[in-house]
Amino acid sequence: MNLAAIQLHDSVFASRQKTGHDVTIPSCLKRCRETGRIDAFRLQWKKGDPNPPHVYWDSDVAKVLEGMAEMLMIHPDPAMEKELDELVDLIVSAQRDDGYLNVHFTVVEPEKRWSNLGDWHELYCAGHLIEAAVAHFQATGSRKFLDAMCRYADYIASVFGPAPGQKRGYPGHEEIELALVRLYRTTGETRYLNLAKYFIDERGADPNYFSETEKSIPRDFLSNRQAHKPVREQEQAVGHAVRAVYLYCGMVDVAVETRDCVLLNAAIRLFDNLSRRRMYITGGIGSTSIGEAFTTDFGLPNDTAYAESCAAIGLAMFAKRLLDVTNEGKYADVLERVLYNNALSGISLSGDEFFYANLLEVNDATHEHGNTCKKRQAWFGCSCCPTNYCRFLPQLGAFCCKAAEKCLRIDVPAAARISTDAYEVRIDGNYPYDGNIAVTIERGGSFALALRIPGWCADWSVELNGAPADRTLEASYLKMTREWKSGDRIALKLEMKPEVIYPHPGIAADAGRVAVQRGPLIYCLESLDNPGVSLPNAILPPVPEFRMGKAAGLPEDTVALRCAAKAEFSKSDMLYRKTPPQYGRVDLCFIPYALWQNRGESAMQVFVRIAPAAF
Amino acid sequence: MNLAAIQLHDSVFASRQKTGHDVTIPSCLKRCRETGRIDAFRLQWKKGDPNPPHVYWDSDVAKVLEGMAEMLMIHPDPAMEKELDELVDLIVSAQRDDGYLNVHFTVVEPEKRWSNLGDWHELYCAGHLIEAAVAHFQATGSRKFLDAMCRYADYIASVFGPAPGQKRGYPGHEEIELALVRLYRTTGETRYLNLAKYFIDERGADPNYFSETEKSIPRDFLSNRQAHKPVREQEQAVGHAVRAVYLYCGMVDVAVETRDCVLLNAAIRLFDNLSRRRMYITGGIGSTSIGEAFTTDFGLPNDTAYAESCAAIGLAMFAKRLLDVTNEGKYADVLERVLYNNALSGISLSGDEFFYANLLEVNDATHEHGNTCKKRQAWFGCSCCPTNYCRFLPQLGAFCCKAAEKCLRIDVPAAARISTDAYEVRIDGNYPYDGNIAVTIERGGSFALALRIPGWCADWSVELNGAPADRTLEASYLKMTREWKSGDRIALKLEMKPEVIYPHPGIAADAGRVAVQRGPLIYCLESLDNPGVSLPNAILPPVPEFRMGKAAGLPEDTVALRCAAKAEFSKSDMLYRKTPPQYGRVDLCFIPYALWQNRGESAMQVFVRIAPAAF
Repeated sequence: MNLAAIQLHDSVFASRQKTGHDVTIPSCLKRCRETGRIDAFRLQWKKGDPNPPHVYWDSDVAKVLEGMAEMLMIHPDPAMEKELDELVDLIVSAQRDDGYLNVHFTVVEPEKRWSNLGDWHELYCAGHLIEAAVAHFQATGSRKFLDAMCRYADYIASVFGPAPGQKRGYPGHEEIELALVRLYRTTGETRYLNLAKYFIDERGADPNYFSETEKSIPRDFLSNRQAHKPVREQEQAVGHAVRAVYLYCGMVDVAVETRDCVLLNAAIRLFDNLSRRRMYITGGIGSTSIGEAFTTDFGLPNDTAYAESCAAIGLAMFAKRLLDVTNEGKYADVLERVLYNNALSGISLSGDEFFYANLLEVNDATHEHGNTCKKRQAWFGCSCCPTNYCRFLPQLGAFCCKAAEKCLRIDVPAAARISTDAYEVRIDGNYPYDGNIAVTIERGGSFALALRIPGWCADWSVELNGAPADRTLEASYLKMTREWKSGDRIALKLEMKPEVIYPHPGIAADAGRVAVQRGPLIYCLESLDNPGVSLPNAILPPVPEFRMGKAAGLPEDTVALRCAAKAEFSKSDMLYRKTPPQYGRVDLCFIPYALWQNRGESAMQVFVRIAPAAF
Repeated sequence: MNLAAIQLHDSVFASRQKTGHDVTIPSCLKRCRETGRIDAFRLQWKKGDPNPPHVYWDSDVAKVLEGMAEMLMIHPDPAMEKELDELVDLIVSAQRDDGYLNVHFTVVEPEKRWSNLGDWHELYCAGHLIEAAVAHFQATGSRKFLDAMCRYADYIASVFGPAPGQKRGYPGHEEIELALVRLYRTTGETRYLNLAKYFIDERGADPNYFSETEKSIPRDFLSNRQAHKPVREQEQAVGHAVRAVYLYCGMVDVAVETRDCVLLNAAIRLFDNLSRRRMYITGGIGSTSIGEAFTTDFGLPNDTAYAESCAAIGLAMFAKRLLDVTNEGKYADVLERVLYNNALSGISLSGDEFFYANLLEVNDATHEHGNTCKKRQAWFGCSCCPTNYCRFLPQLGAFCCKAAEKCLRIDVPAAARISTDAYEVRIDGNYPYDGNIAVTIERGGSFALALRIPGWCADWSVELNGAPADRTLEASYLKMTREWKSGDRIALKLEMKPEVIYPHPGIAADAGRVAVQRGPLIYCLESLDNPGVSLPNAILPPVPEFRMGKAAGLPEDTVALRCAAKAEFSKSDMLYRKTPPQYGRVDLCFIPYALWQNRGESAMQVFVRIAPAAF
């Protein structure tokens, strides 16, 4: 991942990225320090001390470090680089002689190393440390973190495997699989790929490691960890959503590197189930807080959605991988849906408050519990989501395109400059708020330019240097191969009108409701913009007419949508009554879902009632 | 409670009661035997043995015994009486010398007696044993169980209290409070009333017993146990719904016996909050499986409703108590709502399958987890609900009226014969399916007859011996005081037409939907009666017209309702699409909610979409 190749200058991603640098990373680092997560690596904790290092603490620090390194790639910052260097020294200093590196199982419960893979997070933490080390090497050229993590991976490879005396286990929380392939790609050492493949192949195999080693396994334990059957036989996205998509990423990575079509097809099948049956319109996945998990096909409740921020980030990673393997627009459609909606809703515009669960509906009846909140929080006991944003934000540009030597594939045409040895291309426009996109060749060369026509777009046109261009599509991409000259210019016009989107009739929670979409953005109602309207009782006319406008207190470029509608109300305060409701006219104001709860607490609703066409 | 005074012969309650005798009690007893709950009282379990007696096992057995005793009162059965007698001997044999009686804390963890009142169930089990002993004494006249439980209560009174050396604790799961008042009323010993009052008064007092004795208390721990503040200061029904209503019953009982108006008013205030803001239209309470608890005002989701069967039974007990104290019809309205809907839905017509959670909507998207199921189960790990029906069913008649010497108050006019020393009265008719009720004096006397005019009834008439009678109501009761003669006859006609009921606009889950009600019965759609219709996508016309009819496979008297409506469908299989739905005409068939899932598995829905009046 050469993050430096893509420099964003759009109004959405670039500003989020800047906030990530200025606010998100410093504030997460501060929280890590305040909560003892950083000092924990000094290994000074002793029995009886307060605040014992938790099994997942290492992963939080690792994600911040990965984020710092990746931020350095797109945004050089000597002070941050120095701080990162010191942190790397501290972390590496905690490594044991045998290569092991985990704070909790070094100072709190050393006797329990590798003893409960199902519930604890050793291999998960190891994965994040490996990812951070790879990013640190890529950003700085320094091998000190990378070499240490190679030693750790080598040690893990000695512990786990099919040989006599080795543990036949695998992580309860996946992550190390994709990290090991990343390590393999960076170092060229096939033993890391082999270890990733071992973890993938062993998962859910018979006899089942978890069933064999844990005394009594609760109902759903195995499926929650995607260990209910071998991964190649899995057909439905089940269990803990973050674990699932991290696993699926690892499956694609191993499949690609080992040319394993069966494994790749299993991942594609899981993606199809997930994206065609189990995904919120915002790109959210994992419908229930119980086990942070997938539930059933069409089980997509709005007011109890879990749709964890980490799961959205993980789905973006999964979709991006399948897009890169297949070059098929359907994966870009999901990727873009996640990026502009659930992924961005998880973090405040200010960059220092986060949703763990991303509800699609909030009202007075909403029940807050656990990590399900109506308001973003600065931090969580298990703070995986905030620290995930530290690394997700610098990666935003890399999610928008694939800049290979012979082909530049533009998936999400956010304004950016893409520079490689082979070419330099500039994208201008105000995407996602405007469908007019200009692609200018700033330094030419012989390569294919593949421009995605989004799945949401019903009408579009394209001109090359002022003349209509060939409209032939390959899997939703307009591919132009030629010897590009500096100054060549493509004008792509994507029709971007506000529309209502009808959910599948199987989604019981959405019956009689529609979502409002414009371009890749899903909209929502916030009561802040609609004072006096009970959102569940607002009703769009059968054929709504939207006007574009502004909403106070949101970034300048933001396009709000207005629509004449009606709202039901009752004069009775009875819980159940015989008198029908009354109706009043209202002018509803919709804002992009990703921006909700940035102006204080508010009721919110994505799916809005619509009157039947005729009765 | 003189259960023998009321002999039901209606088509709903009487048949359920017979099934309770013939099936529910024998099958629960069998399950108790099979699972080791009965043999546990032999105290043979030793460390290392499988299947250790659980902390709540005693309560399951106690409820079956209470049910057997109460069933004997209305339905003499020498074989059942003999079996009960043997079981009582076994249970009493497990009592310790100091009076203590709890299997788990005698054989499994004897060192932990009274050590964790918040999580374990010692005092709860004691309460059910006391209730069983009272019922056994009332049914048989034998004092052996009663005396043993007096000894247990005396021992508990020595352990708990404000004196030096006593524990200032109280139960984490309420129940013993109401049981102790029942014991006091039976024995006349005020020390049992005093102990009940102590538990009520101490609850939530400062310093808080649970906060002081348990190391770290999870969020919501105190409110889940109604111990977040003193009970007299509580204004909202919070926490675990079964615990809550059992507590509230104890509060009313203590208030009545001690003439404590503040305590009674607290109970009334809690009832008002519960019944005006936190109760399903079926009488269900406790909206979430998380903590089996109340959530927020208007937080009444349908497809994730918990609405535990035990909570419905407990709400019937609570409403009955306030009705008896106040003689106000609003309590009878809630009582009747619970009895005919949520309470009966919890048990199958066959009498041997049970819902723990009573969903108000089931479809393909419904997520089954824990005790939330689409299908009644024969038994549960924690089997409180099945065993609660063993005692609830024989009590049904007692829930329908209050037969005091100088006043017979008829609350629910199910067909029955009510016999006391002072009078004998017969109620005929086909209530709740028909609104024509005949009340005949079979043996006269000087007493007041109070007939309830239900809150659901918009129009009614009454005749006494063929002539119109005075229509003056007192708190929804028509009260006739006279010297009744044998053969005197009252004809009460309650208009009973099918109606749609609009939920409060604050109930977000019900927005745009209505329930269908006729008389006291809430109706629902089952897909079994509506093949090919996706229930969430069925839409009633703005002014539905219902026809009365039959539904196949339900008891003969059952009135089903039919209504011409429309249903939305889509030809697309896409999760999200741009094309609007299409509409087809359907003839919907509604059945009483209490009878759903008696003919196999089926989708089900109580709140059904209705088209807005005009657009």
